[in-house]
This record gives sequence, C-alpha cells and structure tokens, in this order.
Amino acid sequence: MEKELQTFYEEYKQRIAAYQLALNTMYYDQATIAPKNGAAYANQAMSILSGERFSYATDPQNLAKLNDLYETTKDPLLKRELTLLLNDLNEEKEVPKDFYIAYHKAVSDSETAWYEAKEKNDYEIFKPHLKKVITMQKQMLEYSPKRKTMMPYNLLLDRFEEGMNEETYDAFFQKIKDKLVPFIKKITQEGKKIDASIFNEHYKKENQAAFLKELQKYMQVNLKECYLGESEHPFTESFSSHDARITTHYYENNLLSSIFSFIHEYGHALFGLQIEESFEGSTLADRIGMAMHESQSRFMENHIGRHPAFWKVNYPKLQKQFPSLTSLSYESFMEMIHVAQPSLIRTEADELTYPLHILIRYEIEKMIFHEGVDFDELPKIWADKYEEYLGIRPASDREGILQDVHWGGASFGYFPTYALGSAFAAQFYHAMEEQINVEEALLHDFQQIREWLKENIHHYGASKSALEILISATKESFNPDYYIDYLINKYTKIYQLQ
Amino acid sequence: MEKELQTFYEEYKQRIAAYQLALNTMYYDQATIAPKNGAAYANQAMSILSGERFSYATDPQNLAKLNDLYETTKDPLLKRELTLLLNDLNEEKEVPKDFYIAYHKAVSDSETAWYEAKEKNDYEIFKPHLKKVITMQKQMLEYSPKRKTMMPYNLLLDRFEEGMNEETYDAFFQKIKDKLVPFIKKITQEGKKIDASIFNEHYKKENQAAFLKELQKYMQVNLKECYLGESEHPFTESFSSHDARITTHYYENNLLSSIFSFIHEYGHALFGLQIEESFEGSTLADRIGMAMHESQSRFMENHIGRHPAFWKVNYPKLQKQFPSLTSLSYESFMEMIHVAQPSLIRTEADELTYPLHILIRYEIEKMIFHEGVDFDELPKIWADKYEEYLGIRPASDREGILQDVHWGGASFGYFPTYALGSAFAAQFYHAMEEQINVEEALLHDFQQIREWLKENIHHYGASKSALEILISATKESFNPDYYIDYLINKYTKIYQLQ
Repeated sequence: MEKELQTFYEEYKQRIAAYQLALNTMYYDQATIAPKNGAAYANQAMSILSGERFSYATDPQNLAKLNDLYETTKDPLLKRELTLLLNDLNEEKEVPKDFYIAYHKAVSDSETAWYEAKEKNDYEIFKPHLKKVITMQKQMLEYSPKRKTMMPYNLLLDRFEEGMNEETYDAFFQKIKDKLVPFIKKITQEGKKIDASIFNEHYKKENQAAFLKELQKYMQVNLKECYLGESEHPFTESFSSHDARITTHYYENNLLSSIFSFIHEYGHALFGLQIEESFEGSTLADRIGMAMHESQSRFMENHIGRHPAFWKVNYPKLQKQFPSLTSLSYESFMEMIHVAQPSLIRTEADELTYPLHILIRYEIEKMIFHEGVDFDELPKIWADKYEEYLGIRPASDREGILQDVHWGGASFGYFPTYALGSAFAAQFYHAMEEQINVEEALLHDFQQIREWLKENIHHYGASKSALEILISATKESFNPDYYIDYLINKYTKIYQLQ
Repeated sequence: MEKELQTFYEEYKQRIAAYQLALNTMYYDQATIAPKNGAAYANQAMSILSGERFSYATDPQNLAKLNDLYETTKDPLLKRELTLLLNDLNEEKEVPKDFYIAYHKAVSDSETAWYEAKEKNDYEIFKPHLKKVITMQKQMLEYSPKRKTMMPYNLLLDRFEEGMNEETYDAFFQKIKDKLVPFIKKITQEGKKIDASIFNEHYKKENQAAFLKELQKYMQVNLKECYLGESEHPFTESFSSHDARITTHYYENNLLSSIFSFIHEYGHALFGLQIEESFEGSTLADRIGMAMHESQSRFMENHIGRHPAFWKVNYPKLQKQFPSLTSLSYESFMEMIHVAQPSLIRTEADELTYPLHILIRYEIEKMIFHEGVDFDELPKIWADKYEEYLGIRPASDREGILQDVHWGGASFGYFPTYALGSAFAAQFYHAMEEQINVEEALLHDFQQIREWLKENIHHYGASKSALEILISATKESFNPDYYIDYLINKYTKIYQLQ
C-alpha cells in the first residue's frame, strides 16, 4: 500500500516539477530576452499551464492519496516534505470555488490598477482595489483550517516564514525602533560627510560585465550550473539542483548597482545549488521561507560583498576595468560603498536604513489586520511614518504608498521577511566568523565560505525550518542583537562617530 | 452543435499551443544559454510535458470531436486546418500501442548509437540500429490509412512536403545529375582559381556581432519580434506570430559562417512572423512543409544575401568592422563569397555543390525503400557515389555515411526537401524579379522584399500547399529549370567559363 502510494507520489512530484520548470523557463525568458511583442501569447500559454498544474495538483483523488501517504509513512523526511505540500493544498481545498475565483480575479485587477496608479501617480485609482483585496484576504483567511488557533496576521506571517509570529516580529522591530532610528538620526546629523557621487559618472556596460566575469571567477561560480543574464529588475530563478539563473541590470551611470545585484542574487542562487541533491523537484527544495532565502542573498551582498578582504582582492580588478578609479584609494572606496542616508524608495535603500522602510510597512500591516485603517488616510499615514522614522517625507504617492506592488498583489506578511532575512544573515555571519577565518577565506579561498554555507545552512533546504537551522548553525535561537550590533558597530566606525 | 465543437476546438488548440510554446522555450533555452549540468533534469521535464501534450492531443474523446467538427464544418479554411491536424493524429491512431512504443524506443536508441558511432568513427556500432529502424519504419508505414493508395517512400516524401512524390523528385534530381554534375566537374577543372582563405584569418567575435547588428538594421529586423541568440548549430524557432528566435554561431577563424547563418535563419524567422496573424497557434501556422520553409531560408541566404546590391550596401560596413579587409576589393569579395568546390560534408557545402549531396542521399533512400540495401555495403555505396558525382571520396565513416543524424532518427524522405527548397527559392526569386526592381529594393528599401514575400508566400502559412503557393506566386507549377539555370548562369560568370 505505502509502496503504491510512493510510486504515485514520485510520478506526481515529477509531473508538478515539469510544469514548474516550464513556467520558470518561460518566466526567465520573458524577463530577459523575449521580444516584447510575443508577451501576450506567452502569458496566455503560461496561464493555461499554471491551470493544468493546479488541476493536477489539487485533483481530489490525488489529494486523497497524498493525505494517505502522509498518514501511512514513518519516514520523518517524507512527512516533512508532505507537510509542506499539503499545508497549502489542504488550505485551498476549504475555499469555496466561486470565492477562490473571485479572489484571484480581484488580486489580478488590483495589480493592474496598481500599475496604472503608479504610472499616473494617483492613489485614488488604486484605493478601491486595495480595499477590496484586503477585505477578501481577510475573508480568505477565515477558511483556513489553522484559523482556529491562529490570528489572521499571524497566519500570513507564518505563511511567508514558518514559525514566525507577531510576538517575535514585535520584539525585533522594537529593537530597530529603539536602536536604529536614533542611530540613523545621529549619523545624519553628526557623521562624517561621505560623497560617493563618483559612482554616478559614466561606466561602460561592457566593462561592468567584464568585471562581473572576474567576480564570478573569484567567487568560484560554476558556469556549468549558473547563468547570469540581464533583466529590468535583478532576480534569481532556481531551475533545478544543478541549474540556477540569475540576472543583473547594468546602469552606465551607476557603478555599484550591477555589482551588488549580482552578489545578492548569487546568494540566492548558491542556496538553490547547494541543497541536498535528493530533494530536487520536491517541496524540500522549493518551499524555503522567504526570510531564510533573503538571509542568504543579504549575507552574500553585505557580509561578504562589503567585506574589506573581499575588496582587497577585487578592487584592483575593478580599477583595471575603470582606470578613472586609479586615483580613488581603497580606503575611500570602502567608505563610499557604505554610504547610508535616509531615502524614500525601499528598493534603493542602503543596508543601514533599509530595515526602517520595513518597520513602516510592518506597522501599517498590523493596523490593517488589527484595528483597520482609513483608506483615505493611508498616504498620509505612510508619509507621517517616513517623516517620523527617516526624517523625510514623500512628495508624491509614487514615491510613497504606491512604490511597491506587494499590497496590490495581496502579499501581506511578506515585507517583514526582508528585514528578518538581514537579521538572520547577521546571526549566521557571527557564527561563521567564530568557526572559520573569514578574512583568510576571502583573501585566498572562497571555497571555504561556500562550504560553510552548504554544511550549516544550504544543504538542509526546507527540511528544517529557518528557526531550526538558526539553532543548529548558531547554537542559539533567533537573536536580533547580532544584527543591530553589527550595523551599529560597522557604521559607527565608517561615520566616525564618538 | 458545430458551435459547441468550435468552442471545444478553440480550447483544444490553445492547450496544445501552450504545451508547444513551453517545449519551444525550453528547447531554445537548452540550445542557447542553459548551464550544462541542468540538462538531464530539463530533458526529463520536457519528455513529461511532451507526453502530457500527446495524451491530450490523441485522447479518443478529443479525436472524435475533431473528426466531428471536420465532418460538420463548411468553412474551407477550418477544413484545411483540421486536415493538417487529423492527418497525423488519425495515422497514429491505427498503430498498435505496443508497436508504437517499441518504434520510438528503437529510434531513440538508434540516435544514441549514431552519436557514439560518429564519435568513435565506427559504422559497425550504428549498423544494427539503422537496420532495425528501417525495418520498423517500413512496418509502421503499413499501418497508414494512406498506404492503400501510396507507395511507402511516397508516403514519406508526402509527409515532409505535401504533394511531393518520387515522380517529381526523379525528374528534379535527373536534371541535377544531367546538368549540375558535369557543370561542377567543368568548374573544378577549367574554372578560375579563387582563393578565399582570407576569410579564415582571425575575426573577433565582438566585431562579427556588431556587423550582424548592422545587417539587422539593414534588413529591418523588428527587435520587438525577433531575437538573435547563440548556439552550437544555428537554428530558428517560431514561438508565435510576433516572436521568432534565431541563433547563429561565431567562429573567429571563419568570417562568413555567422553572417550567412544569420541571413539563412532570418529567412525562416520572417516566414513565421509574416503568416496571417489569425493562424497563430494552429496547424495553418505550424505545419508548413519542410521544402517550403527551407525555400525561404535559402531565398534569403543565396538570392538576397549573395546579391551584388546587398553587398554594395553592406560590404563597406563589414570593412569598417574589419579594417584588414580594406585592401580586399568589393569585386574580389563577391567572387570569394561564391567559392564552389566539391567537399565531403553536406552542412558545410556551398550553394552550387549542395544539391549533389542530396542527390546521393535521395538515391540511397530509394534503394532502401525499393530493392533494399546491403547494410554491410552502405559505407562503400556512399563513398562510390561521392566519387562518381563529386570526384572525392570520404576517408572515414565520420566524413561519410555517419555525418548526418537524419537516418538514425528515422527521418527518411526529409533530405530531398533541402534541395527542393533551393529550387523553390530560385523559382520564387525569378517571379519576384519580374515584379519588383530587386536591385533598387536592396539598395534603398528592404521593406519591398519583405512585403513581396509576405504577400506572395508568407501570409498563406500552411493554408495552401507549397505547390499551390508556387502556382499562385509564380504563375507556374514547380519547374526545376529556374534553379538549374540560375546556378549555371551565375557560376559560369564567377568562374569565367567559356
């Protein structure tokens, strides 16, 4: 019986994985090289294939077999794999079909409205959609079997990062509020003035690309497993355990953008490539929490990619590509890649001020799911919080409430994982530094960094939760102090504060 | 009733097209940018998706509805569309399932054996597989409903190019034998000696790519509809009516390869982009005969891409990319891109000697399907024919019988379409020349060429057969004399024969 179920499950997984790979490939193609005029046809095909996958995945007969296998098996790894799979599927099962369709229609309309609203810089276009999506999202949560024991917003937080809840996040964001908000104010007022405008001179794309080739060599990127393309917005797509696709974007008036995007995305890619090979095509590879995944990209971008030893090796190579940098010393360069200042747009924020953007969104999301929010007032609430925490105020909706697509797409509970990922990264980094000589590794043997990540984090995939991996890798449960201390120590030095 | 069937058919088409686009995208991805180590996983996914598509396409309930719609409809275009679809599906229906599976297994094993045999330069590895594939292919043809009225080899010829048969091909190849074989001998012995070895000096890939950008501009390639990538072997994949993908390959020791590959593939791509838009996703766009499709690539490569006026405009641009060509006159360049000489490898053959390679394969295929062939003797038969027609003899199986994958993959009847395509191209070109001033168009307005092709050929897609399109565009049924005359006139001048 179990044998039969297992055979079924193997086939089930392979079929779902085949659809997923097709969709990933088409998505990557569309975002990178696809000629614009074929987009409508491709989108239609992708939506048909998503539908096919969904029908097969949620076919009641299949679901019954999956549940049977879950009940029968004694293999804890398989049980974990099925839990991750059935969590979503069983939730969806409870939702009345009509409502399910109406919900997805509302979300899709809302995303379209968001695009238009942002383009026209007009919150009013978006407002009714946002309102509707939130109402329906709340109703949707009522169908969840977990709703009996979990508050709505906790349900969402848990969905994006297993095991997370308001209590943990509250403590985390409270520290950000107590420590980082005043620290950033201090830096802005008393810190050394660092002018990094040299990075906005003209840097030829060709040479940027050549430098990224050097970086790939240095970071020992295996080109038989990892491909770097170009797209409007950098992203990573894990195709399989031996195939990761990343992209970057070259701006000729911004030297750092393509470099740190690449390093960031390679952090994601390496995670995918170092997961236990036997997890390929299963939820143990695919269902990694968002904070956990983000921790690996931030780890690579900030702890590795901004490390002094990293640039000891690579800054001369950068100067070789751009001889105009010859007159800029290594020391000044290191300062300049750490410029931190309050800004309005989350995706362009620096490492230090970034978590404040998330703090603001977290507080608003809590309002939405607790006391409710006055939708007419939302742009003002947003602007007030920016003024309070960052000391600056958006002049338009486009730079304010309309800047991110997330809420339009009903992704509530997602934002907090971005800041949490950075905090995980700092805790991981602290543990790694106690175990290996990071400076030596960055100077002479990048392999060691990859190995440490593989052994302590990556190979687990989703077989453990982020919180379990934290404990196993750092011998401690989640502790945001590492993150706060790391930021304050580092930026105190850079900004020469007393 | 018809209404219902039509609704079903629309959905059926869209679903098949979605699978097809996924497979095309994955294929293009694999052939261009995919990291090598992900290939096995991707191949498995592609085979699962092919299977899904096949199950749906040949589901007996669906087939019954398609046949019903075919019987009911009075729309001649829809009838044509369904004929093209049902031809294959109804044929497959007659094949016993066990045999069908065994056949495909044999073909796949045979392809694998061919790869190994070619690599090891050992025909003996391939021989038993070739024998088996041919035996099974013959048996497969016995199941065809058309077998009652058509001889086996005619069935295959018709499958690759609707309406073609041995009688027409015999007459065609007889002319090649009578006219071109002695003409090529004459050129080899008496013709001017042209040394084109300058093209094998070093030409940087970067500049080759820059020149192709110039060519794309000149040929008015719409970059919103057409993307040029890189792959080991150049090919074209039509994604949809507004999305064509082509590739080329850059050899730094071969200046012409990337250029003429690009022009050739663009001929294919333009066909796909100029088909009646409403045919998108149906057999009216997809089931174009192989000779017909090849006619458009050869047309572009040879009649347009080797036209004196084409290079009047573009040779100076090429010289700009490669200053070493400054000393090579336009006149010498034009001679050199027309070097013709007997060679052993079909895919590397020039325009003039190419059809002789096909003649040889056609004669052997006829032996196989008529009197049978002694498999032990096949390499010798092959070599003897090369000696007879081209005056040279392969020194190894790799350069001889093992050079092409086609027979290993059971694609009998395919080769002849390559030569036929060239002959169609010459006949089309002759007609175009009578209707527009080609020289003027190539000097000043490439648009005219594209328009002529669209109006007279492309927009029909597969709604008419190649032979019908020939008659409509050239006011004459297929006449190989245009091809023979074109070659003899052109090369008589180039080789300065009396």
